[in-house]
This record gives sequence, C-alpha cells and structure tokens, in this order.
Amino acid sequence: MAPRTNGIGVQVENTRICVVMVGLPARGKSYIAQKAQRYLAWLSIPAATFNVGNYRRTDAPQPPADFFEPNNPEGERKRRAAAEAAVADMLRWFKKGGVVGILDATNSTKERRKWVLDLMTQNNIEVIFVESKCDDENMIMANIRDVKTTSPDYQGQDPETAALDFRNRIRNYEKVYKSLNQDGDEEDLTFLKIMNVGKQVIINRIRDYLQSRIVYYLMNLHIRPRTVWLSRHGESMLNLEGRIGGDAELSHRGEEYARKLPELVRESVGSDRPLTVWTSTLKRTIATARHLPKHYNQLQWKALDELDAGVCDGMTYQEIADMYPDDFQARDEDKYNYRYRGGESYRDVVIRLEPIIMELERSEDILIISHQAVIRCIYAYFMQKPQEESPWVPVPLHTLIKLTPRAYGTDVQTYKANIQAVSTWRGKGSTAKHEDPSPEKSLFQTH
Amino acid sequence: MAPRTNGIGVQVENTRICVVMVGLPARGKSYIAQKAQRYLAWLSIPAATFNVGNYRRTDAPQPPADFFEPNNPEGERKRRAAAEAAVADMLRWFKKGGVVGILDATNSTKERRKWVLDLMTQNNIEVIFVESKCDDENMIMANIRDVKTTSPDYQGQDPETAALDFRNRIRNYEKVYKSLNQDGDEEDLTFLKIMNVGKQVIINRIRDYLQSRIVYYLMNLHIRPRTVWLSRHGESMLNLEGRIGGDAELSHRGEEYARKLPELVRESVGSDRPLTVWTSTLKRTIATARHLPKHYNQLQWKALDELDAGVCDGMTYQEIADMYPDDFQARDEDKYNYRYRGGESYRDVVIRLEPIIMELERSEDILIISHQAVIRCIYAYFMQKPQEESPWVPVPLHTLIKLTPRAYGTDVQTYKANIQAVSTWRGKGSTAKHEDPSPEKSLFQTH
Ligand SMILES: Nc1ncnc2c1ncn2[C@@H]1O[C@H](COP(=O)(O)OP(=O)(O)OP(=O)(O)O)[C@@H](O)[C@H]1O
Ligand SMILES: Nc1ncnc2c1ncn2[C@@H]1O[C@H](COP(=O)(O)OP(=O)(O)OP(=O)(O)O)[C@@H](O)[C@H]1O
Ligand SMILES: [Mg+2]
Ligand SMILES: [Mg+2]
Repeated sequence: MAPRTNGIGVQVENTRICVVMVGLPARGKSYIAQKAQRYLAWLSIPAATFNVGNYRRTDAPQPPADFFEPNNPEGERKRRAAAEAAVADMLRWFKKGGVVGILDATNSTKERRKWVLDLMTQNNIEVIFVESKCDDENMIMANIRDVKTTSPDYQGQDPETAALDFRNRIRNYEKVYKSLNQDGDEEDLTFLKIMNVGKQVIINRIRDYLQSRIVYYLMNLHIRPRTVWLSRHGESMLNLEGRIGGDAELSHRGEEYARKLPELVRESVGSDRPLTVWTSTLKRTIATARHLPKHYNQLQWKALDELDAGVCDGMTYQEIADMYPDDFQARDEDKYNYRYRGGESYRDVVIRLEPIIMELERSEDILIISHQAVIRCIYAYFMQKPQEESPWVPVPLHTLIKLTPRAYGTDVQTYKANIQAVSTWRGKGSTAKHEDPSPEKSLFQTH
Repeated sequence: MAPRTNGIGVQVENTRICVVMVGLPARGKSYIAQKAQRYLAWLSIPAATFNVGNYRRTDAPQPPADFFEPNNPEGERKRRAAAEAAVADMLRWFKKGGVVGILDATNSTKERRKWVLDLMTQNNIEVIFVESKCDDENMIMANIRDVKTTSPDYQGQDPETAALDFRNRIRNYEKVYKSLNQDGDEEDLTFLKIMNVGKQVIINRIRDYLQSRIVYYLMNLHIRPRTVWLSRHGESMLNLEGRIGGDAELSHRGEEYARKLPELVRESVGSDRPLTVWTSTLKRTIATARHLPKHYNQLQWKALDELDAGVCDGMTYQEIADMYPDDFQARDEDKYNYRYRGGESYRDVVIRLEPIIMELERSEDILIISHQAVIRCIYAYFMQKPQEESPWVPVPLHTLIKLTPRAYGTDVQTYKANIQAVSTWRGKGSTAKHEDPSPEKSLFQTH
C-alpha cells in the first residue's frame, strides 16, 4: 500500500534531519529545541533532543564560570567529550528510526559546526543550523532570572550570585562566538537565524519540505506571555441521548453553561481585557459563545469541527457496537489511528489542526470553544500527551480549561461551572456506555 | 453572525496590505506579483496588481534604454507620473474593498520606497516590501530572452537588439539601485528579500498572519521547469448509478482506464523519468494508480478526498432534488459557497487544498489522481478561474490533463484514453441529470 501522509502531509521516511542549535547561553536554544520537538512529535514525526549540557553535568555538575574560559584545558576537554557523547547517542537514535534529532548546545564556533556537519553528512543526515541571536541585555538578564538561576548547575546557590556567575559564563562564550556566516564563509550551510526573537529572520538554503515546515514553525514562535483557554460546547440535545456527532442545538443545561461562561471566563482571566474567541462552524459551539461580551472578536473555523464519525454520525456507542462490532473493537485497540468509515481518525484531526496550532503560536490570548476530540488533540499538543493517551483524556462538559505556556512546559487549571451534564467519556475496553471517569483518571487539577 | 474564516483561516476584514515589489528589471518581480495575486484570489482574498510599466507605456510606449537614465529629466518625470497614477488607482481600489494590492515596479531607491510607505501609512495600509535580488548574469539574460524581448516595449523589434537594449536599461537602474536595508537604515521596514531565487531569504519584521502567509508562499516558489498532471479516478461503480460520493470500487471500464494510464502518462511525459503520484485515500483513486510503474513514488493525501456531500453522500442528483429541493436550488445558485448539510462546499475544499498547493509549488513533476471537485479547485488555481466558473468546469473521466506553468500563465493539454465512461457533469439550472457538456462548454483543448 502507498504510504499515507503523516502530520504535515509529507513522506519523511527517507529524510533524516539534525537540527543544530547555535547561540550564546540564555538565548532560548533549549526553549526552541523543546518546542520543535513537541510540535514534530505531535505530528507523528519521531523527534528527540540531545542536550550537551546534560552530558557535561555527569562530569562537571556545578562548574564555575571559568570552566567555560576558551583556554581552560580541562573545561575544553570535558565540554568536547560531552558533545561527542551527545552526538554518538543521536546517531544511535537515528539508526533506530529517528527522523529529526536536535543537538542542543551553543555550537558557537565555526570549527564545532563544521565537525557536526561533517559527521552528519557522512551518515547521510541533513543538517540545519538554527541560531538565536539576541543582544538585548535586559532580555538576557530576564532569561537568566527566568530559567538559569534554578538550573541544576546552581542548585542550592543564591539566585543573584548565580545570575552574575551565569553572566560571566556568557562572557567566556562571547570571546570565541561567531554568528552563523558572520565572516561570509558559511553561506553553503542550511540555516535559520532568528534575531531578537523573530524581529528579523534569515533563511539560507532550505532544501526540502520538512526543513521548510520546521523553519516556518520556528519563525512563528514568540515569547510574550499569553494564555489559551479551552472549552467544549455546552451539553447538546444529542449528548442527552448519548449520540455522537451531528449538529444539534444546546440542551437546557447547555444553554445555562453558555450563559454562565462569561462569568467563568472573567474569573479566570482576572480582568476585563478582551479575548479572541474561536469556535467551530457547528451550532453547539456558536451557541455556547453567544453570550460572551460583544467586544470579543469571534471567528469560526471549520478545522475546529468535531471528529467526523462518518457512517456512525448520530449513533450511540451501543448502536455502533451492535452494527459495527469489529470497528468498535478496532477503535478501542488503536483509537488514535482508527478512522471511522467515511469519517476521520484522531490522526486526521491532528493534520487539519496543524494550521490552528500554527496560528495559536503566533497569537496572544485565545479562547477556543470546540468539541471533545478536537480539544483532546489541542491539549495533547500543549501537554505532550503521547498518542496512546491523548484520545482517552477526559474533557468534561461545562468546564473551562486554562493553559499557560511557561519556558519549559505548560500550566493547567480548570474552572468548573457547576452545571450538571451527562458524561461523554467512555473508558478503553469498557462497555458501550458513557461513564464517569474515575477520579484518578481525571488528568486535570480542579481550581 | 461571527465571520467565517476565509481561505487561509484568517479574518482579514481589518487588514489591508500593499505589497511593494523591489528589484532591478528582469528579476521576476512581475512573475512573483502575478503568482501572489493568483494565490490570494484563489483563497478569496481580494488582490490586484498595479504595474507601473503599463501606466508608463501610455505616455512612452517604446522608450529606448536612455529613457531610464537617472538624470534624463523627461524620463524621470514620466516614470514618476506613472508611479503616481498607479498608486492613486491602488488607493481607489482599496477604498472599494481591496485587501492586498501589489505595486509592481522596480522601486529601487530608498526615496521611492519611503514615498510609497508614507502614502500607504497615511491611509492605514500596511506595507510589505518584497525584493528579488539576483546577480547570476546567465539567469538574467535567460529571463530577458524568456519574457522581455516579446514585451510590448519591443514590439516589432529584433529580439537580439531588444535583449541588448534591455541589458542597457538595467545598467541605468543599477546606477541608483539600493537593495533593501543595504545601508542599514531601512531595518524598520517589513520586508522579504529573496536572493538568487530563494537560495537565501531574509524576512524582516513580519507583523501579522496574512503577511506571514504571503511571505511563506513566496519563499516556496521556484522556477525550475516542471509539469503537473491531473486525472480523475477511473469510472466507479457509483458513477455507473449516477450516485455521488461514497467509496466504491472501479467499474469494468474504470479498471480499463487504470490499466491504460501508464501508457497515457508515458506518452505525455515523453520519457521514462519517474513521477511522484499523489492520490486521495479513497479506493477509486488508489485503484486507478495501481498499474503505474513500481518505481514511481506514491503518496495518499486525505486532503485530496472528494468534496464531502454530507447527508447527500451516495445519492443521485434526482434523489437530492426530491429530498432537498431547496438545497438543490441553492447549490445551483451559488455552487462555490453552497455547503452540503453535514458536508463541504467548494470553498471548504479550497481551504483544505491550500497545503497541497503549497507543496505543489515546492515540488517538481507531480501526477495527481483525485476527484471531480478537487481537480476543479486545483485547476482553478492554475488557470485563474473565477469562483463562479470553477465549480462548473467539465473534467471528464478517463482523461489526463497536463498543466505546464510558464512565466505568466499555464499551458493545458489533455490526453483522452478513448475508454467510454458515463458523464458526471451537470449544467447549471438543468434538470437533475448528468449530461454531456456541449462542445463549446468544454474548456480543454484535446490533444
Ligand atoms: N528566540 C529567543 N530569543 C531570546 N530569548 C528567548 C527566545 N526564545 C525563548 N527565549 C527565552 O529564553 C529563556 C529560556 O532560555 P534557554 O534555557 O532556552 O536558553 P539556552 O539558549 O538554552 O541557554 P543555555 O545555553 O544556557 O542552555 C526563556 O525565558 C524564554 O522565554
Ligand atoms: N526570484 C526570481 N529571481 C530571478 N528570476 C526569476 C525569479 N522569479 C521568476 N524569475 C524569472 O523571471 C522572468 C520573469 O521576469 P519578470 O518579467 O517577472 O521580471 P521583472 O522583475 O518584472 O522585470 P521588469 O522590471 O522589466 O518588469 C521569468 O523568466 C521567471 O522565470
Ligand atoms: Mg539550553
Ligand atoms: Mg515586471
């Protein structure tokens, strides 16, 4: 059978890419690496990050700034050994089927970059360098305070002493640092240079589709603080009957949720600043957004419509189990990949959500009102849920979820409207009934 | 009602962008402008190009090279007047609802760029500069021979004399030309600089989603010669019954087409070089591709599946007209925007085809085997069919369509397999029957 397209609609079987981060300390290299990895994994592209600092720490757990002096021979030797160990592990990982490996280190000299490039080229792996360059001293000190003073390198130390030591570490790197193609002799490299968090971006010799998707994603990242709220539509008439899909109106209690949502949102936002609201094109999400303040911008996306259940649209789980017992079973066994006859799988939904994720990354505060499967997929992106788990995440009705992205993860809070609703959750391997997820299965902390 | 998203899923009502082309003559500015306009129009974003050369020609139809000398006062005056007329027309067009206006001229001095920027800013229009920079002398001469010697500026003249005159015209521009931000004093501008047809790309201060989509599209263009072939699947069992949608097997004659397709393709390709084949995920396109040579790469895209007819899936037009007479009528009146209950409109299909178009632009030779509505949408992109026409284009079964993009348009050829098939075409306002398009309605020249 011909290969199906994966998350970004591209056949990657024959492509292997090593993304080599470049930049002085505290420029967001690990931040960018971690975002790229999460995005690719969400799109079913095997991706892993190899952080040279973690390898170095086994040998030199808490080195002072002068460990990073260019002519400290012991420091130089240990740092080189760490890089070699990281790259060796990456090559082993590529052999086992890895597609995008990210080398997270400063790689701040031309020699080091050439060494990685040659090694990868010998192994038939494409290399793309991604540099973050930033000379805004205030932002760098903010970055240091944000993440560096709590790094394992400074465990148990006074934060201000740590910040100063880290600033000195950077000065040692500055002595030998060369920005990509700074001298004009690296113009054959494939690279992306992000300057001052994306104010300017230079893209050099991008070769194929997968490279271009990574570049496009990375050039859309910003680091202004923001929040994403998620809510399912209020309970619908079909929810009441335990039927899936369809395009029903809200139930009486669903309507009550719609009327309560503005208050819930205000409580969670903590101020009157307006949000942008995205709904699907289905009646139940539009009705749920209806009572939100008039000055909120609202936008309908077809990409936010519920997973299409194909021939099973409008049926109860019991009816599906009776009419299509094999399908019912197959879906339980691999819910992520199971595609309803004439409909969609979770994998399909992720593909159509990709532009939504891209737009979310570009945006500031957004409230999304959508459907169970769609919210599971968006939630999986932010929370790095693996594909075996994401289709089973309980997303109860009448509950607002607040996601706050941080440097290396996302905080979750939920706000319950305290308006009763049917459960639309069904456990794996259970009978064809909606049930209440047991408390330990509930992945959310309630606020 | 909340606004629906348009082709690129973004609310553009409050955005107006002036794309200002920058670059010496014969750098592909008009080529890029025309591609951007076609792409945006296909996505339902009102876009228009204002070519200063066309305005200048009313005053100076066939000027010699020295008309373009920086200190030829008459030339300077006429060229400035032409720019002013073009910009004035563009501003009028924005007032009438234009969203992306493209100013196609060399705009090769900082003064000229500042003049446009100030004027647009006063009118609340965002400006994005798009420069094509190229110093490959062979490519420039090839460009001149490709399009300049046949330009109206040189009508009736000897091509070689024309080429030389044009080369001299360029030298006059070179005297005053400044590349974007060449002196470091234009770094506040929003710009895209494409160097040597995309080998390097610089992106500066891109502000919003629409800008970023335009930039992403333009950075994916290439100008290597290539061809796109389109075919519908072979006749299916449901085609025989006049039913739409579904996921049927091929009919006997459809199978015959699948077996003949390799020969038809070889005839059209003219050689044995392998193609990449894209099909939908439905049985009838996969079966149609089955007999193509084993060394062709094959890829299945869900985005290439047929327009989803929702509740009408599997019905005949007669059944639809009987069961949903209002819908049947509504679809006739605005077929592009009519969305089947629980299904899709042509507009929806275009949205999900956007990544396909992007990937097509990046690729070289591709053979697409898909479905009537999908092929109409792809055809509309290449041939600039307006939305009132594209859903009615006859795309007969058992016919291979060859599209060859040229500098300013696309050539079409068709290859008939001479295997009978039912017609799946229905005229606007006609009865609920499939019929044969009358010869004058057939938009393709048969080979
Ligand atoms: N493009 C960027 N430019 C500058 N700062 C950024 C960028 N992206 C993320 N950040 C910020 O950088 C901080 C994270 O720093 P991070 O640990 O990723 O730096 P690093 O470059 O990996 O440093 P080190 O070399 O010490 O590992 C966060 O506060 C994040 O907001
Ligand atoms: N990015 C590019 N760089 C160089 N050439 C290109 C590029 N894109 C397209 N071309 C080629 O340029 C030719 C078209 O030239 P075009 O008429 O668009 O130039 P122009 O810049 O508009 O010139 P003029 O200033 O005379 O109007 C085609 O042959 C096309 O293949
Ligand atoms: Mg780091
Ligand atoms: Mg031109």
